[in-house]
Amino acid sequence: MKIKVMDDILRANDAIARDNRNRLDEHGVFTINLMSSPGAGKTTLIEKTLDRLGMRCRVGVIEGDIETSRDAERLEGYGIQVIQLQTGSSCHLDANMVSQALGELDLKKLDLLIIENVGNLVCPAEFKIGEDHKVVVLSVTEGDEKPLKYPLMFRESSLLLINKMDLVEHTNFNIQEARQNALKVNPQLEIIEISCTDDQGLEEWDRWLLNRITVPSDTPTT
Amino acid sequence: MKIKVMDDILRANDAIARDNRNRLDEHGVFTINLMSSPGAGKTTLIEKTLDRLGMRCRVGVIEGDIETSRDAERLEGYGIQVIQLQTGSSCHLDANMVSQALGELDLKKLDLLIIENVGNLVCPAEFKIGEDHKVVVLSVTEGDEKPLKYPLMFRESSLLLINKMDLVEHTNFNIQEARQNALKVNPQLEIIEISCTDDQGLEEWDRWLLNRITVPSDTPTT
Repeated sequence: MKIKVMDDILRANDAIARDNRNRLDEHGVFTINLMSSPGAGKTTLIEKTLDRLGMRCRVGVIEGDIETSRDAERLEGYGIQVIQLQTGSSCHLDANMVSQALGELDLKKLDLLIIENVGNLVCPAEFKIGEDHKVVVLSVTEGDEKPLKYPLMFRESSLLLINKMDLVEHTNFNIQEARQNALKVNPQLEIIEISCTDDQGLEEWDRWLLNRITVPSDTPTT
Repeated sequence: MKIKVMDDILRANDAIARDNRNRLDEHGVFTINLMSSPGAGKTTLIEKTLDRLGMRCRVGVIEGDIETSRDAERLEGYGIQVIQLQTGSSCHLDANMVSQALGELDLKKLDLLIIENVGNLVCPAEFKIGEDHKVVVLSVTEGDEKPLKYPLMFRESSLLLINKMDLVEHTNFNIQEARQNALKVNPQLEIIEISCTDDQGLEEWDRWLLNRITVPSDTPTT
């Protein structure tokens, strides 16, 4: 009975996710669903991405948090379109929440939409929200075995960003082990090692995004 | 309708949690529900606790993970009672899962039971499982604003362990800010700063446990 209810919820969610995806495709907005544990560095990565790509394409952000609008406030200075979703008791974003946020955005003026999910390595992976790709951030302080312990997250994602590489020497995180564990659950997973403190790997992240974004040639980027 | 279902699930869960608590009380087993984000250091803290208190009281462990039994395997060498619960698609332990694990433990031979919940700062806080106290671990690499962003976890817990203090100088984590944020959501919360690398704060953690554990005077501790 409990499983039946869950199944219905997921099916209803997926229908709304398809609608979201169609709306975004219609306006040529490349969309990523950015997921991680709490504190893996998602918001700082978004700030870095705005610093680096903000002049080359038009970026919008949807921030998902249980409570507070601190993350959206951090992005206010960038003069971009930002929506804060407060999920209340829900530990993940679902397609309906994102659908409401899309209604508040001017999609014609976006090339890239970054949706920062609630910090949680479990439930967000179960809910499609209309994204082109799921991207998971794993910080080296969390441990190299996480892909085996939270396999759905790594199986659903197209790209793994191994973050806080500047701290790796202070931890017992083994990069080769982490890569092998991640590829064991998802052989197609792309992996980039990054640090938002010393900027390592961020050029590769820029390229990953720019290869997928369509910037209309006749549109000013500001 | 969705809310109604959730409400029923929580009520049914709480009834089983009370049964668990009664069984544990009957045998004088002090029980903690240990929660955190993935990779905050729960299993390493349990290892340290076994090293330090294993001779003074009889400790049992229930390990909750989505998949794998790696955490239980790490504890095998200690010769203690360990049960691994694999939750499958569930992102938290519930009282029924713990009830089944209790059936596999010899409660007469335990003074302290540590239940390591699934790594997740959200859902585990919603489900009572029969514990005397919830204890939340926050590592300094996760950020000092986490109590405001995940308030239920910090509101439900009796004790906050701020972990990985040996790394604090490499981060922008502000201890005073973290303490203030935690006490804002839960003024009764006790807070201990620890590191399982250089052992700081672990004596205070030992004392916190030993003050609450009843070791029968006529029972050998091995």
